Amino acid sequence: MLHLRRCQGLARTGVFLSQRTHLKAVPPHLSVCVGPHLIRWESGGGHGGQNHYSHPAKFRHLVAGLVAGAGAVLAYGLHHSQVERAATSVQPVTQSSDLPVYTQEEVTKHRSLSDGVWVTYKGGVYDITDFVAIHPGGDKILLAAGGALEPFWALYAVHSQDHVLEILSEYKVGELSPEDRRQQESVSSSDPYSNDPKRHPVLQINSLKPFNAEPPPELLSDSYITPSALFFKRNHLPVPKVDPEMYKLEVEGLQGGPVSFSLKDLKTRFPKHTVTATLQCAGNRRSEMNEVKQVKGLNWGIAAISNATWSGARLRDILLYAGYGPEVATKAQHVQFEGLDCDVTGTTYGASIPLAKAVSEEGDVLLAYEMNGEELPADHGYPVRVVVPGIVGARNVKWLSKIVVSEEESKSHWQQNDYKGFSPNTDWDTVDFKSAPSIQELPIQSAITHPAEGSPVDSSMGEVTVRGYAWSGGGREVVRVDVSVDGGKTWHVAQLQNAEKGEEPAPSPPPGRAWAWKLWEITVPLPTEAHELELVCKAVDNSYNVQPDSVAPIWNLRGVLSNAWHRVKVKLI
Amino acid sequence: MLHLRRCQGLARTGVFLSQRTHLKAVPPHLSVCVGPHLIRWESGGGHGGQNHYSHPAKFRHLVAGLVAGAGAVLAYGLHHSQVERAATSVQPVTQSSDLPVYTQEEVTKHRSLSDGVWVTYKGGVYDITDFVAIHPGGDKILLAAGGALEPFWALYAVHSQDHVLEILSEYKVGELSPEDRRQQESVSSSDPYSNDPKRHPVLQINSLKPFNAEPPPELLSDSYITPSALFFKRNHLPVPKVDPEMYKLEVEGLQGGPVSFSLKDLKTRFPKHTVTATLQCAGNRRSEMNEVKQVKGLNWGIAAISNATWSGARLRDILLYAGYGPEVATKAQHVQFEGLDCDVTGTTYGASIPLAKAVSEEGDVLLAYEMNGEELPADHGYPVRVVVPGIVGARNVKWLSKIVVSEEESKSHWQQNDYKGFSPNTDWDTVDFKSAPSIQELPIQSAITHPAEGSPVDSSMGEVTVRGYAWSGGGREVVRVDVSVDGGKTWHVAQLQNAEKGEEPAPSPPPGRAWAWKLWEITVPLPTEAHELELVCKAVDNSYNVQPDSVAPIWNLRGVLSNAWHRVKVKLI
Repeated sequence: MLHLRRCQGLARTGVFLSQRTHLKAVPPHLSVCVGPHLIRWESGGGHGGQNHYSHPAKFRHLVAGLVAGAGAVLAYGLHHSQVERAATSVQPVTQSSDLPVYTQEEVTKHRSLSDGVWVTYKGGVYDITDFVAIHPGGDKILLAAGGALEPFWALYAVHSQDHVLEILSEYKVGELSPEDRRQQESVSSSDPYSNDPKRHPVLQINSLKPFNAEPPPELLSDSYITPSALFFKRNHLPVPKVDPEMYKLEVEGLQGGPVSFSLKDLKTRFPKHTVTATLQCAGNRRSEMNEVKQVKGLNWGIAAISNATWSGARLRDILLYAGYGPEVATKAQHVQFEGLDCDVTGTTYGASIPLAKAVSEEGDVLLAYEMNGEELPADHGYPVRVVVPGIVGARNVKWLSKIVVSEEESKSHWQQNDYKGFSPNTDWDTVDFKSAPSIQELPIQSAITHPAEGSPVDSSMGEVTVRGYAWSGGGREVVRVDVSVDGGKTWHVAQLQNAEKGEEPAPSPPPGRAWAWKLWEITVPLPTEAHELELVCKAVDNSYNVQPDSVAPIWNLRGVLSNAWHRVKVKLI
Repeated sequence: MLHLRRCQGLARTGVFLSQRTHLKAVPPHLSVCVGPHLIRWESGGGHGGQNHYSHPAKFRHLVAGLVAGAGAVLAYGLHHSQVERAATSVQPVTQSSDLPVYTQEEVTKHRSLSDGVWVTYKGGVYDITDFVAIHPGGDKILLAAGGALEPFWALYAVHSQDHVLEILSEYKVGELSPEDRRQQESVSSSDPYSNDPKRHPVLQINSLKPFNAEPPPELLSDSYITPSALFFKRNHLPVPKVDPEMYKLEVEGLQGGPVSFSLKDLKTRFPKHTVTATLQCAGNRRSEMNEVKQVKGLNWGIAAISNATWSGARLRDILLYAGYGPEVATKAQHVQFEGLDCDVTGTTYGASIPLAKAVSEEGDVLLAYEMNGEELPADHGYPVRVVVPGIVGARNVKWLSKIVVSEEESKSHWQQNDYKGFSPNTDWDTVDFKSAPSIQELPIQSAITHPAEGSPVDSSMGEVTVRGYAWSGGGREVVRVDVSVDGGKTWHVAQLQNAEKGEEPAPSPPPGRAWAWKLWEITVPLPTEAHELELVCKAVDNSYNVQPDSVAPIWNLRGVLSNAWHRVKVKLI
């Protein structure tokens, strides 16, 4: 069974890819999004609707690296420039008329180190053979060999920087024939993100393609439940368009073989559970690490965290229905998730969580189809996403297409070679991603949302009101937030809030199931004769873990897990 | 049923107490250790062997405060002196011959604020009526009214300090008649700790009575499994002597009424489970907090933590056998434990843990009867103790006599008014013990065991080897230890060890069940031209929680949860 769906941007990219001879490593049915929900380009059907592909492991790894976006793909020249910018700043490479003209067919012959590695970009032909060895992502660059760079760069705005083009220009060897160029242009203008939904204009955009944005901090602490439109968006790939009628969720790895569920199945066959849970990106507050030393990743402020009410079927119920039992538990240790969001090669976003969390009655893992009482918005995984309370956002897979119960963690790039923490001394030359566990539970966190850095504070009342949020991973409840107005010399205990302002406080959650953040507020007398204040906050959870004092000792090359005391300087007026 | 057992020291104290008219608040059957295993003084039987006492709540609270030892009992004059010393330094109060002579009968008439509050101490009579209001423990002092201070002070060496005697001398009003004094002396020399076991001489003693001692740090990291003799000892009360043949464990609060188990029952009716688990006192590393500002509590170094193999019945199995089921789960939330160790009033040590931890298959809570493959030593709870992996030592109740499944936490002093964390700004005037949760899971911890502070380090090899331990509460596995030899400017990743040296590394524990510490070691090149090194370590667990940089911001009035980076200065020679 093969269902044709709207994934237009990617479909066009698929056309584009098909213009050059297929990379041998790419199975022909795999060139675009896989799964029964979206176009499978050139596959001509087959495989009986089961998404069981046999990519060679190495190829999967290559592709995974390619789709890492802000991660390992690009390192050259980043040290002194902003890591990510919108895709709009690309300038065409200057063309020189005295270079030879090549046809696409000739370019396509150069697809290996032995034959030379050629690529095209905006009508230019480049021999990047010598660059392959110094490409930060290694030989992943070979995926573009013999063809055009545009479909890859279109997915990852990280390449859209002048110095990348400068580097490229050094390798120019010729011009593409006008005929082939015209053919390219007819498709290269396609935008895989053209189907992304409209977003709220107040969002502060860190990356347009893929879309990554956070709300203004002061709005964040205005409401205990973050409105969906303001909830931070963290997409790794274009937002897939899914027809709810055709949606199928496949569950594999359990006794009795794969099981498939429609959206209606999920909504009607299993009890609907509702959980209020905070999600936080591993890169929240990365910008503070960038101030210590440049890291790789989106330059998030303090608002890559939000709190919502999620409703859906419990993953535990689905797994039990699909054949989970004690026998599975003796072998399997992980539950893998695949999303429908995919790159030009058809590799989908993927992640996994420990099986114990997935099947625990107290784990509260949902296959959510509602957010804040309404249908899931497109940016948050319509029609179904995983919500894994207490666990880093990256494992809360959106646009869920497949669940695999397995002995191993997800092989995805994001599970294996990203979203891990390292020592401050570890750099890109020495990092061994196998040496660190994938991030699951997040550490204790808090930040000041009001007043903002550098803002003037009226001192006429002799006091200042400070507000913020606090949350901890693993269901550990925040039990205290200390606030200082003198840079951390003395402390005051803030008032915690676990419901909307004016509402009755919610009852305490059972131990280990505090999934939602607490907002906090305190009014502190101003120190006498102060002209400037250094506001600081630090939180404590019920395991009495605390935030570290400073950023440098937790600095890490990916800029994740940034949870030092939050400091805000304000001026008294 | 009432079994007479050896609890001689306390028995004599009981005699002593009985010399004065009984405090009205003390039920007559309650004056010494309760329970079927030990002497119940003056009870004359009754109650059918069921330990269900009806102490008035207020009385329990008073007694609890009294037995807090290093806690709330003593605050006056502590600011500039060591908090605890051994009981041997007591000097008799100087006697003045011109004061009137009183009989014990006359003294006994002064047992209230209206009649005056008199006490005796080493033949002196003291009117402490005016002192009651300024006694740090409040009117708990009234428990000694009309009688002798010795039995109370004998239990708590914290009173054995010169300045306490100085304060007392100000209230002297007379001498006890020689006859009554002789009678007192015949019993006041009794020592409730006379039955405490012999200990290894290498232990560093923080308090002799009750016995609290830690091994030398360098021995701690010599073996992955701490030998029982070296395992840190943290007793709150005298060690009870228990006849294993007569031992009974009572389980209450489940359907079908109380159930009783003999030691043989525990060993034969339930599968024997073995768990390697690290226990840590909440006060480990308190001495570093004392360096910031004086706190109350035993002045522990870095070795109030040890690792052992524990074997016994699973608490979960016992509770299921005794009637635990879904109906209980809807009401109860806690499991309380009572020990056989008790004070002069019969109040036993007590604590509780969340029910979810107790009944979880993954919680691994044991009723242990073996430690490191041998019978539990007396200091570690013979014949049965609770081992709650991942949870603060204080809840691992020794000499276990009773388990109560309940809606509420233990009402014991140690659960309600001790072993909680507070903000650095909270002092004894402002502390509200209800405002903080009882410590259960402990935060991430690590320390350097070698080299020792101030020790000379041979620089001829151009490198230094640093060793230590790392552990985290809640079953969170230590995944990395960073070590610095330059005070925290640069870091090196240490090698972790989860088995004895030379043995194969143990397999990784399942997620959330890493109960045992890791030892670590690293050899670091010496910085050029250094004459002194500041060694620092900090650990990370798999929730990526980290240790805070410094002590002052986590300082708290009880000196618990001291887990800042550990710093050791050494000299290069």
